[in-house]
Order: sequence, then structure tokens, then C-alpha cells
Amino acid sequence: LSVRQSECAYKYKEIVVKKCSGYTQIWLFTNTPARNALNPQVFEELKQALYNAKFDDSGLVMLSGSGNIFSSGVDLPYLLTNDKRISARKMAEAIREFINAMVAFPKPIVAAVNGPAVGLGMAILPLCDIVYASDKASFYAPYGRLAQTPEGCSSFTFPNVMGTAMANELLLAGRKLTAIEAYQIGLVSQVFWPTSMMQEVIPRVENMATYSAKALEASKLLIHSHRRAKLEYTNESECNMLQERWSSPECQKAMRAYLEDEQDLLF
Amino acid sequence: LSVRQSECAYKYKEIVVKKCSGYTQIWLFTNTPARNALNPQVFEELKQALYNAKFDDSGLVMLSGSGNIFSSGVDLPYLLTNDKRISARKMAEAIREFINAMVAFPKPIVAAVNGPAVGLGMAILPLCDIVYASDKASFYAPYGRLAQTPEGCSSFTFPNVMGTAMANELLLAGRKLTAIEAYQIGLVSQVFWPTSMMQEVIPRVENMATYSAKALEASKLLIHSHRRAKLEYTNESECNMLQERWSSPECQKAMRAYLEDEQDLLF
Amino acid sequence: LSVRQSECAYKYKEIVVKKCSGYTQIWLFTNTPARNALNPQVFEELKQALYNAKFDDSGLVMLSGSGNIFSSGVDLPYLLTNDKRISARKMAEAIREFINAMVAFPKPIVAAVNGPAVGLGMAILPLCDIVYASDKASFYAPYGRLAQTPEGCSSFTFPNVMGTAMANELLLAGRKLTAIEAYQIGLVSQVFWPTSMMQEVIPRVENMATYSAKALEASKLLIHSHRRAKLEYTNESECNMLQERWSSPECQKAMRAYLEDEQDLLF
Repeated sequence: LSVRQSECAYKYKEIVVKKCSGYTQIWLFTNTPARNALNPQVFEELKQALYNAKFDDSGLVMLSGSGNIFSSGVDLPYLLTNDKRISARKMAEAIREFINAMVAFPKPIVAAVNGPAVGLGMAILPLCDIVYASDKASFYAPYGRLAQTPEGCSSFTFPNVMGTAMANELLLAGRKLTAIEAYQIGLVSQVFWPTSMMQEVIPRVENMATYSAKALEASKLLIHSHRRAKLEYTNESECNMLQERWSSPECQKAMRAYLEDEQDLLF
Repeated sequence: LSVRQSECAYKYKEIVVKKCSGYTQIWLFTNTPARNALNPQVFEELKQALYNAKFDDSGLVMLSGSGNIFSSGVDLPYLLTNDKRISARKMAEAIREFINAMVAFPKPIVAAVNGPAVGLGMAILPLCDIVYASDKASFYAPYGRLAQTPEGCSSFTFPNVMGTAMANELLLAGRKLTAIEAYQIGLVSQVFWPTSMMQEVIPRVENMATYSAKALEASKLLIHSHRRAKLEYTNESECNMLQERWSSPECQKAMRAYLEDEQDLLF
Repeated sequence: LSVRQSECAYKYKEIVVKKCSGYTQIWLFTNTPARNALNPQVFEELKQALYNAKFDDSGLVMLSGSGNIFSSGVDLPYLLTNDKRISARKMAEAIREFINAMVAFPKPIVAAVNGPAVGLGMAILPLCDIVYASDKASFYAPYGRLAQTPEGCSSFTFPNVMGTAMANELLLAGRKLTAIEAYQIGLVSQVFWPTSMMQEVIPRVENMATYSAKALEASKLLIHSHRRAKLEYTNESECNMLQERWSSPECQKAMRAYLEDEQDLLF
């Protein structure tokens, strides 16, 4: 990287990155119409933040959302504007690269889910290592309503984490989960009261940051080695399918109807 | 298929098939001594019903049991009559083909478990995509008492869904689960009050039937691709072992004792 | 085995082996500073006990701990004395062989967790087939504090049993679980009151001992076949990493600090 590129890397516009003692905080703080939605620009900055955290002295990374939403998922208006084929291709390509960056990230990632985690915002949670959630978080993948297919390796990770009966109800039928339900099925490690969530999460992250970074990385490597190849393969299959779906008239129409129904995500 | 075969296919004697708007209902309604028991004739009709639903305009299939039992499992009297070797071979062959048909079925299958799901009646649930259950359903695989080995790919799916500690207690020790327990371990997606179960399940199935059939099928393909080869391999291993077990004097004796104890399944 | 070796095999000093009708009881009862800690001598006796139970007429094995601890895990003082490289190599080698013996053991193993299961004492539970626990049992793997990596195939079995969010909180962050929590995530099959635990467990084990030993073994073979190769591979990777870690100054220092903090394990 040239100096200029490296400087640019810190001029984030869609996320906030805070270097703390022994670990790195990454906060979604996007300029998208729906709060903390994900588009190629956001993915690019997230990738850059992970790249920096990989090579600095961070022992681990904490990932959270600013405001009262964790992430509203893929930025649908992006897919509905300009040439739909080009948008679908760019979005699929950006997801492919971002998910691969998460899968390859060698240090533990702790997600702090502060509010609704919708679609891809929920799907990436099993790619994080530990998932803490506020009691007011909710979990929802509207893939059926959007006439699209699963993202973020959820077609592989969800059945593994929670079994097929629950994974399919989430991915095919679009069931909405409370934080406690997400905990009971294993998607979430622990649930905290909304007002004190960060007071609970930060000390846990700080404590982990005191552990041997070498041991944490070696442990993650052992745990992760069993699924890494499958995650990469799944990501590839999912992105190919998503690109095709998103550019279809059926899916375009479903996305428009969804956006009209879900005005509450836009604030 | 000739016209005559195709006509015959609809003359079901052991199941009831109802074509609804956008989906198909299949109800077990057998003539076996134990309610909704499974034998080669029942499997043949189930296979035919799945075959028809695969090629018609159904978006998905709902599978349930008539009366107050979902399924009492394999039709043991069938295995105890005539030449035990021939019966064991025919039963194993019929299970092999039926399970492969379920594994290969491309559209979502929603099970509505209305009462006890015993043995194979319980084992096939993870081959369905979503599993709704009545609060009065119970789940039980008496393989230890029957001196037999697991069926319906349960030797693979059960540990995957619920972990080894619980899977082995069900498959080796014969633990009986309530509907709530089955939900807690991930075998069941949701539990409803017995009196209103169908009023809860049908709208959910009808809602899924409004989703893009193409997207549902593509999603199932992605989710299912990770385990399909393993399911087929498991089914093969299990059926070979079952055929050997069922024809053994040890197992024949155990089946007779089981039938004497479980008179309540015969009504 | 010569007669003398075979005789010696029964002169256990670190465990108690009881041959019961149809099954074998193995109790940890070690001479280590921390109660029921595990070192090469203990592993050798456990391997010998499994070897005997494999070839005798036992239908299954029950494994428990004497006193009020199930196992405090690896015997840390052993790793801190003498040449640290030689100790680390011997310990890793002993774990490799013991875990492989458990993985290859063909009959069901029922664990009865009577108290705290720490580190390797917790990690081996998914290698047992059924896990009963006392309500006063607790579950804890202090790998972060010890600056070491996972043992006993837990880097593979934990994510499989309970999902990644919980597995990583246990293996990376060192979360301590109650018996009820261990049950809810699938690590434990059932929890009993401390005072009546053995009155609950023994009849269940005795009942399983009445089942066809051939059917139980064939069932375990089917269930186990899906993960056996992965367990052996995981064990190998973990032991290589553990040997390196344990002999590092970082880990030696962390073990000393841990022993000072955890005086309550020494009684």
C-alpha cells in the first residue's frame, strides 16, 4: 500500500473505527436510506478496517452498529437504481469479497448486536466468533418476501448452529426472533439489558484482550479450520445465485413492495 | 408414465392427498394395525404423492397424520409375518427408496406433527424443512428395546441437529420427549396448542405458498447441498444394517415383546 | 499381553474400575494435587480400563469422578516440573493416545458428571455418548487464562454441539456454565439433583445394559462413523499445538498464575 492509500483507509465515511488498548472497535454508521444498510462502499470500508486490524497489535475486534439498529441488511435502493444487472453484479461481488475477508480474518470477532439485525445483518453473525446482544435486538431474514436466496453463508451456518427445523423457518418462512430466542437456538452467546449492554460487553472484550494474542489466534485457527473451505464454497454459490435473483423482475418487484412495507427501517 | 399408471397414482389407499392453492397436503391415513404405521405399500403411495407434487404447480408440501397419531413408525407386524428375511429385505428396500425420494425432493416440506411421532415417524422429521408440532405430540425412538439400529438418516441428522449427548439418549437409550423438549433441542420449529394447531399451521403454509416458488427451491437447494450426499450415504448404511437386524431372532423376539407392551399404539 | 502385564492392568492406582452386571464403571480417583487431574499415568490407566471393557462382556461403560469434582483437567503441576519440553511432549503424547482410545471405543460411554468438569474434563464430554450431570456440576475451560489452545477435540465437537457463538465463548472467553446451561446448549443429556444423581443414573445404565449389545454397538458405529476421521485429525492438530504452547514461557507463566488463583481446585 502506498502512503496515500494507507491514509485514505482511515478516512471512513460509512463506519467508525476506534483503536482501543489491545483491540479494535468497528461501528456501522452508514449514510444509506435504511439505517446501517450494506452496499459496496460500506463493504469496502469494512474490508479495509479488517485489513488494518489484522496487521496491527489488536488481539481481537468488536463489531457493532451505531444508533438503535445493528444492520438493516443489504441496501435495497442500491439494487433498484441504475442498471439492475450492473448493480446486482457489483453488490454480489462486494459481498463475496467482504464475506471472504471475514472468513479469513485470523483474530476473534465479537459482535455486539445493539438492535434489529435484518437479512445480511443477521446472516453474518455466525461468521463472528462471539455474539453478544441487547435484549431489544431482533433477528429477521426476509428472504421469502424478497424472493431472494440466503446470503452471508447462512445456508451453511444456520443449519449447523440451530438445526434444520429452525434454520429453514428463518431462511424460508422469514420467522422473526427475539434476542432470547436467538440465544436459545445458539445464534447469540449472551443477552444483556439494553441500557447496560456496552457496560457488560466492553469489560468482556477488554478481558479477552489481556489473553495471549498468539493463543487466541491459534485457537481460532483450530476451531475455524473445520469449516473454512465450506464457508468459501458456500459464499461463492450464494453470491452467484443472489446476482441472478436480484436482477430478476420477480425479485425487483418484491424488493419494491418490501421497502414500502418496511418504512420503519428508514430512520 | 402411461395414463393408467397415472390414474392409479391418485387412487391412494393409505394416505390422503389434497391439492390446495399453491401447495399440496399429504395426510397419513393407513390401514395398518398400529395407527399411521409405515410399510412398503404406504411408502409406495408417499413416493407417488411426492413425485406428483414435484412436477405440479405446488410451491411446497405439508405432511401430517390423520387422527391423533402422527406416525407409529415401521409396521412391525409386517416384519413378523411371512418369511422374515423377505419381509426385512422388502421393508429395507422400501425405506431406502422413500428416504431417497424425500432427500431428493426439491420443494420445501412442512411437517405438522399432530400427535406421537414414534421411530421412523420421528426420524424423518429432520428430512422435512420446517416442523410444526402440537403440544400433545411426543417423540420417541424405541431402537434399544427393539434391538434395532437407527433409521431415516437419524444416525446422521440427530447429532447434527441436537448434539451428540441428546441424540444418543434418544437413539441408544430411547428417551421420550415432549413437544416443548423437542422444540428446545431444535427438532421442532414451533409448538402450538393442540386445538388450534391447524389454524396456526395452514396460514403459515399458505403464506409461504405466496412466495416465489423459484426462490424457495433455489434456497432449499443451497441449504440442502451441504448434506445431500451424506444423507444418501447414511440411508444406504442404515438400510443395510436394518435388514440384517430385523431378520435376526434377537430382533424378532424384541419386536414381539414391544408389540405386547405397546397395545396403546393399536387403536 | 503377558500374564504379568495383564495382572498389572488391574492394579489401578489413579482410577477405580468396577465390573457390574452387563457394564463397567470407571471412576477417576487420582493422587494428583488437584482433584481428579489428568496426567500420563492417569491416561495410561484409563486406556487400560477401556481396553479391558472393550473385550469383556460389558455392553457399555459408565465414567464418573470420585468425591465432589468430576475432573479438574490437565495436571498443571506436571507441566511445570522437570524439563518443561519433555513434560509437554509426554503430556501431549498421552492425551493423543487417550483421546484416540476414546474415539475408537466401540461401546456406548455414559458420563456421570458429579461436580466441576474443568478444561479437558469438560472437553471430553462430547466424546462420551450420553452425559448425565448433577445440578451442582459446572463446566469451564480456562484456555484463555492459561494461554493455551483447545484440547480433547473440543475445537471440533463444541461448535458442532452448541454452535459457534457459545463454543467460542467457552473456548476463547472462558465462560463458566451451570449444569442447566450445559443442558440447554446440548452438552449434557439430562440434569439430576445432586443427592439422587446416582440413583437416577445407575438404573438408566442398567436398563441400557439389558439391550442387545450387538445393536448398541452397531448403532454407535453408524452414529460415530460421520465424525470419527475428523475427530482423529482434530486430536492430532490440537496435540501438536498444545505441546508447543505448554512449553512456551508465556504459557508456563499463565499456568503458574492460574494455580495461585484456583487454590480451591486443590483439595
